[in-house]
Amino acid sequence: MSIDPVLARIDSQLPAALERLMELLRIPSISTDPAFKPDCARAADWLVEDLQSLGLKASARPTPGHPMVVAHGGPEGAPHLLFYGHYDVQPVDPLDLWDRDPFDPEIQDTPRGRVIRARGASDDKGQLMTFVEALRAWVAEHGSLPCKLTIFFEGEEESGSPSLIPFMKEHAEELKADIALICDTGLFADTVPAIVTQLRGLLGEELTITAASKDLHSGMYGGAAMNPIRVLTRILAALHDDEGRITVPGFYDGVPEIGDNLKKSWQALGFDEKKFLGEVGLSELAGEKGRMALEQLWSRPTCEINGIKGGYTGDGFKTVLPSKASAKVSFRLVGEQDPVALRESFRAMVRSMLPPDCEVEFHGHGTSPAGHMDTAHPAFETARQALTEEYGVDAAYVGCGGSIPIAGYFKSILGMDAMLIGFGKDDDQIHSPNEKYDVESFHKGTRSWARILAALAKS
Amino acid sequence: MSIDPVLARIDSQLPAALERLMELLRIPSISTDPAFKPDCARAADWLVEDLQSLGLKASARPTPGHPMVVAHGGPEGAPHLLFYGHYDVQPVDPLDLWDRDPFDPEIQDTPRGRVIRARGASDDKGQLMTFVEALRAWVAEHGSLPCKLTIFFEGEEESGSPSLIPFMKEHAEELKADIALICDTGLFADTVPAIVTQLRGLLGEELTITAASKDLHSGMYGGAAMNPIRVLTRILAALHDDEGRITVPGFYDGVPEIGDNLKKSWQALGFDEKKFLGEVGLSELAGEKGRMALEQLWSRPTCEINGIKGGYTGDGFKTVLPSKASAKVSFRLVGEQDPVALRESFRAMVRSMLPPDCEVEFHGHGTSPAGHMDTAHPAFETARQALTEEYGVDAAYVGCGGSIPIAGYFKSILGMDAMLIGFGKDDDQIHSPNEKYDVESFHKGTRSWARILAALAKS
Repeated sequence: MSIDPVLARIDSQLPAALERLMELLRIPSISTDPAFKPDCARAADWLVEDLQSLGLKASARPTPGHPMVVAHGGPEGAPHLLFYGHYDVQPVDPLDLWDRDPFDPEIQDTPRGRVIRARGASDDKGQLMTFVEALRAWVAEHGSLPCKLTIFFEGEEESGSPSLIPFMKEHAEELKADIALICDTGLFADTVPAIVTQLRGLLGEELTITAASKDLHSGMYGGAAMNPIRVLTRILAALHDDEGRITVPGFYDGVPEIGDNLKKSWQALGFDEKKFLGEVGLSELAGEKGRMALEQLWSRPTCEINGIKGGYTGDGFKTVLPSKASAKVSFRLVGEQDPVALRESFRAMVRSMLPPDCEVEFHGHGTSPAGHMDTAHPAFETARQALTEEYGVDAAYVGCGGSIPIAGYFKSILGMDAMLIGFGKDDDQIHSPNEKYDVESFHKGTRSWARILAALAKS
Repeated sequence: MSIDPVLARIDSQLPAALERLMELLRIPSISTDPAFKPDCARAADWLVEDLQSLGLKASARPTPGHPMVVAHGGPEGAPHLLFYGHYDVQPVDPLDLWDRDPFDPEIQDTPRGRVIRARGASDDKGQLMTFVEALRAWVAEHGSLPCKLTIFFEGEEESGSPSLIPFMKEHAEELKADIALICDTGLFADTVPAIVTQLRGLLGEELTITAASKDLHSGMYGGAAMNPIRVLTRILAALHDDEGRITVPGFYDGVPEIGDNLKKSWQALGFDEKKFLGEVGLSELAGEKGRMALEQLWSRPTCEINGIKGGYTGDGFKTVLPSKASAKVSFRLVGEQDPVALRESFRAMVRSMLPPDCEVEFHGHGTSPAGHMDTAHPAFETARQALTEEYGVDAAYVGCGGSIPIAGYFKSILGMDAMLIGFGKDDDQIHSPNEKYDVESFHKGTRSWARILAALAKS
């Protein structure tokens, strides 16, 4: 079945496809805020109806949180693909930093091209719809779906996916496919199509150090009473050595050196470190000495203090010795680093540094191990070729500094490899005010999926 | 002129004296909040009228802020005393932690005795009125004042005293006396009358470290971009060495060892370190090793982090790399430490520790040098004897960990020594909800001033 008429239809029907995306973007499906629960259900129902119109057997499945959308279709015996995306979006505050209502989407002309401006335009409704629109064009031209398909849309990705693992386990047989396609990542440096083959894992920890039983006046107690901010800064400052390495015992267990081939391919990407740092007002790499930028971002583990507070932080000055001080610390993990073991090692290190009279309380946030995609699976090279054809630029296997736990779950729960392909750009402002998705990303993304589907259908 | 009828009158007139204090406490003279400016003026006028009723020539003097109350009286040729107090009070928030309206004073029976409950009861209206009531009883019994007197009440003590120095300089000739009496301190350990002979100075600094030009996502930048919280914790952690000594270059210049006599007298106070720390849930001294508690509190300099903030500090977790992180740091100073020189040394140390791409911005808060009262002035021993007689316990020369800049100004601007005598207790909750002043403090305080005035009049 020829791809050309499908691509031509995608081109001619772009305005209608954008209209459909705008409809979905008008639904404020903020998953973290209970006030928007009916809107999340409405977004799921909208998708179910749209998928049914393509001949898929689709339904919204209840969970303790927001519904999952699951759909099946396509010819038996053909390669079986699962496609994952999420229909929920981030909250929109601070609302006053938006140029317009985040749920009143608009196509805007900008100096860098036409963009779709709305919450969720890039993360992830626009990306998710690239796949749906590719299917629609295919069905319109050829009367049937190109492959056997399972569609799996989540509504809790922006709020920690509490229902995801139980749902995947309960419906493992139904969800299994040959390979999973995930559309929630970006292009490389805005111009080069990319397949993410390694993702960093994440370990989030919050620690609160308590010294005295109440806030004290530094005139009355200063010098004699322990200050928990002093204790906290001492502990946090000890997490890195002078070379930028992390000092948590056993931290580098399971951290591999990247192979020479991968290193060379990353070097060949021509990543512009000066531009990358310069855009945010920086000029020097802050990570482990002697590592190139892409290693520091993709293949080296990190420890970051994401938040700290203690004592008086308002205007002016108060000479208070606070009772408590706290910090949020996250570790990005690579290779075989074990988040559970590292959590214990971190906590033991903190406890060992506590002076007398101080207590520490930990609150564990998420853990996810790092992900490695096995590019030996033939679908990777097939998809890479298809992306290369669409963009006219060699598609790259890249790493991703962030953590997308779903990729690991497909492997660990369903035994499937996952391919992360997306069309977002660095300036999409996801999770921030004035989120956008380039019309070009939406258009070329749709065309890319049509090409990938055609190529995988043949394989 | 005999003291006995004066003391008897103070005893018999205690209910009326308390009534007058309650009247003053009903005026919400919060100096920091412009909404209460008329109330500050009303408090000043109330005092002027009360002082006039004692035969003093009193007036409220305008300043760019709240008025000063100045009064003169008493026989020429007699010893000339200046008495200082402040009629303004701290704000009352959080109001919901108060058991009653802070400006609806009440005498309450508590397990630890009768207390006057109201904002300003202890700090400083109750203390200030002990002196006024002593004068009233004296005048009632003897028909005239015991000494030549200058009364000097400020209305901006709780908001940094912006008008104080200009006013003192402008009216230096008018305000000069033989010695100043300041009633804004406490008893020693709640039971022993005390004259404060050394006060720590204060240097307040706020620093904000900026790395990237905006907040970054740690998935996208983590590892490669500098985190200003990491920089800040590293700098703050370096401010103390393992022995608890402060590492700012030149910090200990001008820090004296206390003399053997003073050390012995402090040891003789029988300060209960275990109880002092135990009351706030602590058990071990946190200051310089090998120094007793009273040294750490009164005669050793400190460095405290009073506040810190950076990144995401709300509920849950955000993997943000913030652009900025900031802290408020204060130093308590002793001996001849120079706050201006130390500010520069601190700033230079911070700058020297900044990694590439980071900037630091400083905001200086108050500075005041440490204060040392010269107990060689005969008024000290006279007052100490009078306090000893009233309390039946040897009155002590003590230090004070806090900073009361006015004492230094009397010396530097007017060339007068100052004696700090007060009757507050550690549990008075000044600056906090449910402030109180013991009726016993008010009563014995008034009696003490009558004794001190009688003794100084004879000298």
